[in-house]
Parts: sequence; C-alpha cells; structure tokens
Amino acid sequence: MAGFVRELTDRMSAIEYAAASLSFPWQGNESSRDLDAAEGLTLARDILAPEDFPPFDRSTRDGYALISEDSYGASQSNPAFLTIRGEVPMAAVPSFSLSEGECALIHTGGVLPAGADAVIMLENVERTGNWLEIRKAVQKGENIVFRGEEFSAGAILLPKGVQVDFKSSGVLAAAGISKAPVQHVKVGILSTGDEIVPCETRSLNPGQFRDANANILSSLLRRHGYEPVYLGIVEDSKVSLEKALYRAMEECDVVLLSGGSSVSTRDHCSTILESLEAPGLLVRGILMSPGKPTLIAGIKEKQKLVMGLPGHPFSCFLAAYTVFLPLAHAMNTGAIVSPWRSVVLPVSESVFGHSGIEEFLPCALRDGKAVPLPVKSSFAKALGQADGILRLSSSRETVRPGEEVEVWLW
Amino acid sequence: MAGFVRELTDRMSAIEYAAASLSFPWQGNESSRDLDAAEGLTLARDILAPEDFPPFDRSTRDGYALISEDSYGASQSNPAFLTIRGEVPMAAVPSFSLSEGECALIHTGGVLPAGADAVIMLENVERTGNWLEIRKAVQKGENIVFRGEEFSAGAILLPKGVQVDFKSSGVLAAAGISKAPVQHVKVGILSTGDEIVPCETRSLNPGQFRDANANILSSLLRRHGYEPVYLGIVEDSKVSLEKALYRAMEECDVVLLSGGSSVSTRDHCSTILESLEAPGLLVRGILMSPGKPTLIAGIKEKQKLVMGLPGHPFSCFLAAYTVFLPLAHAMNTGAIVSPWRSVVLPVSESVFGHSGIEEFLPCALRDGKAVPLPVKSSFAKALGQADGILRLSSSRETVRPGEEVEVWLW
Repeated sequence: MAGFVRELTDRMSAIEYAAASLSFPWQGNESSRDLDAAEGLTLARDILAPEDFPPFDRSTRDGYALISEDSYGASQSNPAFLTIRGEVPMAAVPSFSLSEGECALIHTGGVLPAGADAVIMLENVERTGNWLEIRKAVQKGENIVFRGEEFSAGAILLPKGVQVDFKSSGVLAAAGISKAPVQHVKVGILSTGDEIVPCETRSLNPGQFRDANANILSSLLRRHGYEPVYLGIVEDSKVSLEKALYRAMEECDVVLLSGGSSVSTRDHCSTILESLEAPGLLVRGILMSPGKPTLIAGIKEKQKLVMGLPGHPFSCFLAAYTVFLPLAHAMNTGAIVSPWRSVVLPVSESVFGHSGIEEFLPCALRDGKAVPLPVKSSFAKALGQADGILRLSSSRETVRPGEEVEVWLW
Repeated sequence: MAGFVRELTDRMSAIEYAAASLSFPWQGNESSRDLDAAEGLTLARDILAPEDFPPFDRSTRDGYALISEDSYGASQSNPAFLTIRGEVPMAAVPSFSLSEGECALIHTGGVLPAGADAVIMLENVERTGNWLEIRKAVQKGENIVFRGEEFSAGAILLPKGVQVDFKSSGVLAAAGISKAPVQHVKVGILSTGDEIVPCETRSLNPGQFRDANANILSSLLRRHGYEPVYLGIVEDSKVSLEKALYRAMEECDVVLLSGGSSVSTRDHCSTILESLEAPGLLVRGILMSPGKPTLIAGIKEKQKLVMGLPGHPFSCFLAAYTVFLPLAHAMNTGAIVSPWRSVVLPVSESVFGHSGIEEFLPCALRDGKAVPLPVKSSFAKALGQADGILRLSSSRETVRPGEEVEVWLW
C-alpha cells in the first residue's frame, strides 16, 4: 500500500521524507546494563545529572587556598604576605574558614575552605614558618572548579542516542551512573542474488561471489550500536524474497536487503515493498553514486524500517553509511546527526565528477591530502585502506589536484 | 633492576626506546574465530590471499564483451558493427570464445569469454537482431576486472595488527576467510589513590572522586582490540601497590596503573617499577602536557608491559591514547602506527601554548575549524564532546584564531 513514492530524490530529502513518515522512536527494546556491558550500545534515554558536579568547590592544583583580593598587586618584586591558617585534609571538609589575610595549604581535589575563592600554585609562593610569601596575583576562581560548574543536578548529561564508548563512559562513571539504559535495535540482514554464496565457500564457480556485504553491514551496524542479525542468502524469486522479508520483520526492527536493488531483484523488491502496509515504499532511487538503486520503505504502525541496498560491496556500504545510519538515528531521536566527521582537504589527484548527482569515493589521508582510492571491481579492498569517503556535492564536476574537497572521516 | 632510565624524554623517543627494549610480539594468546566473533579484535598474523581474486576475468557492468580493437574509431556518427556470438550465462564459464568482429551479451559479474578483453556498456550500443551497433570506442580492460587484479594468491591481504571491523571484514569474507586468527592481549587496569571510590558510590564524601579512568580506559582498550581486565582500586601504600601489581602481572600481559603517577603515588610507583626484572623502568616522565608524569616499564623475558598513567581523566586518557596504543602496536608488530587520523585545520580561538613541550587539548570540529574544548576540572566532560585532540608540537607557542593546527581525529 504505497503512498506517495519519491523517485530518484536527493539523499537528504530522502532521509528527511522517510524520517518524517516513519517518525517512531523504537519502543520496548530497552535494558539497563552495567557500563561495561553497555559498551558500544546507544543510550535509550537522555541521561540527567543526579547531582551537582563537582559536588563541592575543589582545587585543581596543589597550592594554597586564599581570598583572591589579598593577592592583588603581589609580584616578584612586591610580594604579599599571608598567615597560614592550616592544611585542608584530603577527603574531608576543612574545619576552619578563611578571613582576610589568611590562607591554607590545599592539594589537588581538596575541598575549598569557606571564605576562599582562589588557589595559588606552589611555584608562586614561599613558605616561611607560618607565613606565606605570595609573588603573583591570582584571580577569583583561579585553579578552582566550583560546585556544579561541570553540570548541575537535573541537567542533560548525555542525550538519547549517544553511544557508550571511551568518550561517554567516563562522564557516566564520574556522575555515579554505573548502569545505563541502552537500546536494542535489531537489524536483520538478508542477502539476495543467485550468484551470492556463503563466505565459507571454499572455491567459487565462475560468476559466483562470496557474501561480503553481510559482514560489512554487520560490522558497521555493531560499530554504531545496532544489533545485526544475519538471516542468510535468499534466492532470487519474488515468492522466496517476500516470505523471507515477512519472517525477518517478525524478528527484527529493521530489515536490510543486501543486493535487493540489483538489476534482477530490484523489480521484485520494489513490488514487495510497494505492497507493505502504510506507508510502504517511500523512496525509490537516490541521486547518489554509487547507491542510486537504494529503496526505503516501512510500516509505521509496526515500527518497521526496510531498505533495499545495492549489491556491490562499496555501494552497499555507502548506502548503509550515508542513508541508513542518519535515517535510523533521526527516526529514533528526531535529530539528523551524521556519524562522520566532515573536513575539507586538498585532493591528491583528479577526481572525475558529474553535476546533478552526489558522488562518493573511498579515500585515504596522506600528508594532509585526500587520496582517492579506486573501487573498480565488485570488491571491498578499497574500503580496507580508506580513512573515510570523499564527497562531491551534486553541483561539483571534475576536481583537479590541489583543489579542496569534502572528506567524511569514519 | 632498572637499566638506563630516560627522564622526561619526548613522546616519540619514549615510544621508540620502550618498543626497542620490549620488542616482543605477545605469544600464545591467539585464537581462531568466526568473523562475527572476531569483530573488534586484531589479527594475530598476516592474512595471505588463498587464491587469485577475482578468480576469473569478470565484467563490472551489464553490456557486451568484445575485442577492444574492433571498437577503435567507433563513434556516434561512425558506428562499428559486430556479430553477437551469444550470451554469457550467469555463474558459468561461457562455452564459446570470441573471434575478430564478434561480441557477447554479458551481465555484471559474468565471466569473460576467451578472446574478449573489454566490455562496452548497454547505453553505448544498439542491438538489431544478431547485430550490435557500437557508438563508442572502448579500451583494453575497460569495465573488466582481471583474474588476480585485486590480489594474487599468497599476497598479504591484511597485515597482523589490523582490527576486524567494517573496513576489513568485507575483504576477509570476499576472500573466503570465514575464520580469522585473532590476538588476545589482556590489559589489567589498577586504579590507585585513596580519594578514588568505585563509580557505583552513590554520594561522595568531600574530596572523593569516582573512578572514571577505569571506564575510559576499558572503553578505549576495547575499541582498539585489547581485552581490558578491571582489577579494582588499590590503596595508596607501597606494599599494597606492589602486591596488586605482581598479582596483576600474573593474569595480564599489560598493566596500566591509573593515577599511579599522581604526586602521592608517583614515588611508590617509580620505586616498584625500578625494582622489576630487566629492563624494569625505562621512561620516567614524558615531555607532554598533560601526561607528563607517565611511566613506562616492562619485563622482557615475561613479556610484560607496565605503565603508570596520570590520575586526571583527560591526562590518563591522553597518555593511554598517544603513548600506550602506539607503543603496544609497535611492540607487537614492529611498526609504529598511529591510531588517529591527522589533519591540519584552522583553530577557532586562541590556544595558549609553550615551546619545549608537546601539548594536547580535546577539540571539536565545527564548520571546518578546530574548536578547543576547556578541560578545567578533573573531569571527562570535554572528552564526551570531542572529535579528536588538538596538538601543538614542542616548537609551537600560542596559536591565534585562524592559524592552522594539527588535529588528531579519533
């Protein structure tokens, strides 16, 4: 039951249209996991700070806590002198407070005594008995982090959709969040095509290809917090394909048909997706190269997303990377966020482009330049050497050596 | 039994010296795993291509196989005509070969008939009965990938140390390598410091810090193919630390002491590492900020690497990222390979640097610029927002907005 199908639309419009048509956050697939076990998965909800952080005014240095005004005007040639009131004990609130003209020895992480508003570093002072000679003015707040300065109780620490990894696990641990709510989005991978054989196949008959796409997709999905489910290779007939797809949709939230948009299977696939419940087929073809025959469909009520990806390993990867990942994230969080880091770099050699279509090529970084890698055959070797992909927007034609191009780094 | 200890040396010299002193590939910790289960681990050996790939000359397009010379001079206004000899069946060797003036219908992935050396695409031809009108010249090899063109039998497909991920799993699958030999390097994480409490701790006493480093390190290690083993928090005394370290070395190939180079524990740590078996302590202090108090030590005969990392989460992360990762890779493979991608970008605001020391700051990418992120307190928030780290080499001082800096992207 296809509604309005967009034919050969540009990539961003395709993502926006599909995300708007299928704007469901996947429900009921959340679990609470120890940070260790949550690793690599994405946060199912916004994580709020349970308390002010840091919970106390803290020194960030070894030095002396003081009242900043007492140091004003102090210099090497004109030092100021303060009375040492005591030493701040580690892991305890100091029992004293500071009055004008007083200071206290403090260690990194130590709790600031009441009255103090700055810390002067050890190298800028000299202690003589109970007197401290100060040879530098310090500003209010210097070498201190105030209570709640990093975040205050109730603030969003990390938003939904962020992956638990080396960048985020430290924030969670520091805030005392030792269990994180994570999402389990199951993505089924169905390989199609009579020429495709399992990767275990020892020797190939002429014209056969081992199923590299399933592994590339599984790895890519896992890296971005999804749970891949390999559903095997299905023969190239409408009946088999339809049966396999419906079975896959029972088990999975998303189904990616790899090779499902190749010449021979494209028609079957398109017909089957057109007959899905609403909204059914949404996008037939995207103005990108490679990746043009990509199909997007879904069932809103059942919260299913189905995509037909090209058969060529680089094309298949590219459609998953530049269409599926942003789309699934947008459907789930409402925000379009790119999984890549975009930089602009000079290109090392000519890249032949055509206006009217967004074009992609794997590329390596070498000496600050983007080196395009050839993807001649139907193989994944170029991907193995790539640091990211080089993008020519639809308005760009051939690019000469030294001209700048957009590079999307993994 | 410390040999020659390098004091406060530059980062690259420290890595090279330690790698040369501890040049062991870790032995006896290899297993063979299905690609799925190998995900995220690193290859224990060079992977050789078991066969030529592709195993046959293949078409990369739908079109007609022909002898390129027959098309020379053909154009829109001056087409050439060929006899259609037949159709190449999918997944079978064609039963015929081509002679001068002949061509054959072929599909993407089809095996080239003997005699043919190029494929012309469908859009450049018109078929009339048994005749093919050719409106474009094609070159020898056009739209074909030759047997062994991607790699020949016995060539190194992927070198030891490469991680099994979306970039490499496709190559392995395509080559029929469904099980990969992967390495298990166990890295023990020992947190030290009396102010450090487990991240589960609900409310902090003044001056206490939750152990964020253990999670940051675990995540970072896992991401780079190591197997982290969290060994808990050890109290800040020489006896306890030594006991914990020796126990850790029994179980693990590497031990990272987090916080083990803070002011209070630094001396204990340094003393303990000096007394290890040869070569013992190798590097005491690295000319980098943060990360200066980093220690490197090891026992060659027992194949153990031990490092003391700073206590501040960003410093701890940075020493692990810029010292441990390249060092462990170099010890294991003999090659110094950076885990980051280096680009040169203009900086969005001033960065205060000092000559004589290599300096690092987390930074985000925004509109093609490197935006330095403040790391004021002892916390990991900046890391959560970072796309990479900004590096000022030891010869650079303060950098003004718009000036270019080196950025190491994750």
